Amino acid sequence: MIGSVSLVGAGPGDPELLTVKAVRRLEEADLVLYDALVDIGALRHAARARRFFVGKRAGRPAIRQDAINRLMVREARRGHKVVRLKCGDPFVFGRGGEEALALAAAGIPCEVVPGISSAIAAPLLAGIPVTHRGLASAFLVVSGHAESAYGPVLRSLAPGSATVVVLMGIANRAAIVNELRAAGWASQTPAAVLFGASHPDAEQWHGTLESLAVRDAVDDNELPGIIVVGAVAALAGILSTQDAVHAEAERRSLSAI
Amino acid sequence: MIGSVSLVGAGPGDPELLTVKAVRRLEEADLVLYDALVDIGALRHAARARRFFVGKRAGRPAIRQDAINRLMVREARRGHKVVRLKCGDPFVFGRGGEEALALAAAGIPCEVVPGISSAIAAPLLAGIPVTHRGLASAFLVVSGHAESAYGPVLRSLAPGSATVVVLMGIANRAAIVNELRAAGWASQTPAAVLFGASHPDAEQWHGTLESLAVRDAVDDNELPGIIVVGAVAALAGILSTQDAVHAEAERRSLSAI
Repeated sequence: MIGSVSLVGAGPGDPELLTVKAVRRLEEADLVLYDALVDIGALRHAARARRFFVGKRAGRPAIRQDAINRLMVREARRGHKVVRLKCGDPFVFGRGGEEALALAAAGIPCEVVPGISSAIAAPLLAGIPVTHRGLASAFLVVSGHAESAYGPVLRSLAPGSATVVVLMGIANRAAIVNELRAAGWASQTPAAVLFGASHPDAEQWHGTLESLAVRDAVDDNELPGIIVVGAVAALAGILSTQDAVHAEAERRSLSAI
Repeated sequence: MIGSVSLVGAGPGDPELLTVKAVRRLEEADLVLYDALVDIGALRHAARARRFFVGKRAGRPAIRQDAINRLMVREARRGHKVVRLKCGDPFVFGRGGEEALALAAAGIPCEVVPGISSAIAAPLLAGIPVTHRGLASAFLVVSGHAESAYGPVLRSLAPGSATVVVLMGIANRAAIVNELRAAGWASQTPAAVLFGASHPDAEQWHGTLESLAVRDAVDDNELPGIIVVGAVAALAGILSTQDAVHAEAERRSLSAI
């Protein structure tokens, strides 16, 4: 009998932010293929499964995408329940759609289990609501990995018309700031960079669009960083959620980054 | 001793899409204040709590926002653990930021627990990845409630530069389509409307930007509808997740809406 593949979102890192369904799929799994940044606490739910790391090490994939696809197909054909555990949400970057297409093409039963996306949760945990009445009634999530991804949308976006959330954009942040400035965004627009959302060693940087472009030291952090630009970023100092209070205390104990 | 308030995201509806943390907060709660569209299955976790509906009935609030805020403050001051259970994610529309500000102003300990946003999960469950390599490397989430919310951002957005997800926009969809058309979006851009994501009675409509504007019958659905516009909407027919297969079968059994 044929098995199945579940593409499961693991959320931003904290194992408590797994969904009930994700936990159940992990408990039932025969095989778990997991990405970098997936917390060990999540894998503990898969006590009876074989577990393989298939993410990136030092920015390079441990295993090629087509090899991951073949592995999922082969194991499902052997009757196994496979969980492909992905950071955040399976369909927010991370090639979940491609994996689902490969499985559909091979005739493998596949379901996709949504996860908490760090695009929304990283700002939230820092006390930044991506929408807020009177400040933002829209938000844009964009990959900062390549100019072809962020260029067209950012240089068209009316200033202040949406909160901008950039994933994988730390290295290109000067170019990203330039696109927004060229579109007319004010240099004093609040901005924040959130490193390692929901991880115990999370860090934050707060400033403006202008200072975001010039801060070289932001590069030094090894944790993935999420950039937030927009009026809502200024709420971080006011919205003292427990997590934010905790992170704020931690941030103050750090030297300015 | 002072109590606390947790603003908790309940996700799109399916109780299995609650986070582990949300379940724990509900189990510990003394009082739960919940919105419309929160599933009874979620409330079952709060067996020991008093539970009050504070959402909208027939589009009108059962209780005013300032009254909800006062109630949370009063109950926390009495030492109670209050859970404010909100649809989707607390900071994606739904005034979670305002509630957090009110609690901060009153000095009430407050945490925000992220939830699965239907802005991402509704497309996912219909087999639509909001991002997909070669098709979309950005997505915009916008409120369709008022022109002042969606107008400035939609009329600036470069055609095809981001997947567009509109919440609360069914009634204004002709005006929303006009904004995108005015910005240069092609009339044949794939579009979908997803009603009642993750609910057993979920329904879908698939078409184009052009047909989205003219379909009067889309209004007839009583479930909240989410509009998706962009090339990725065409993947719904290919990406046969179990949920999508289920929904597709159901959709075919419906008369065209």
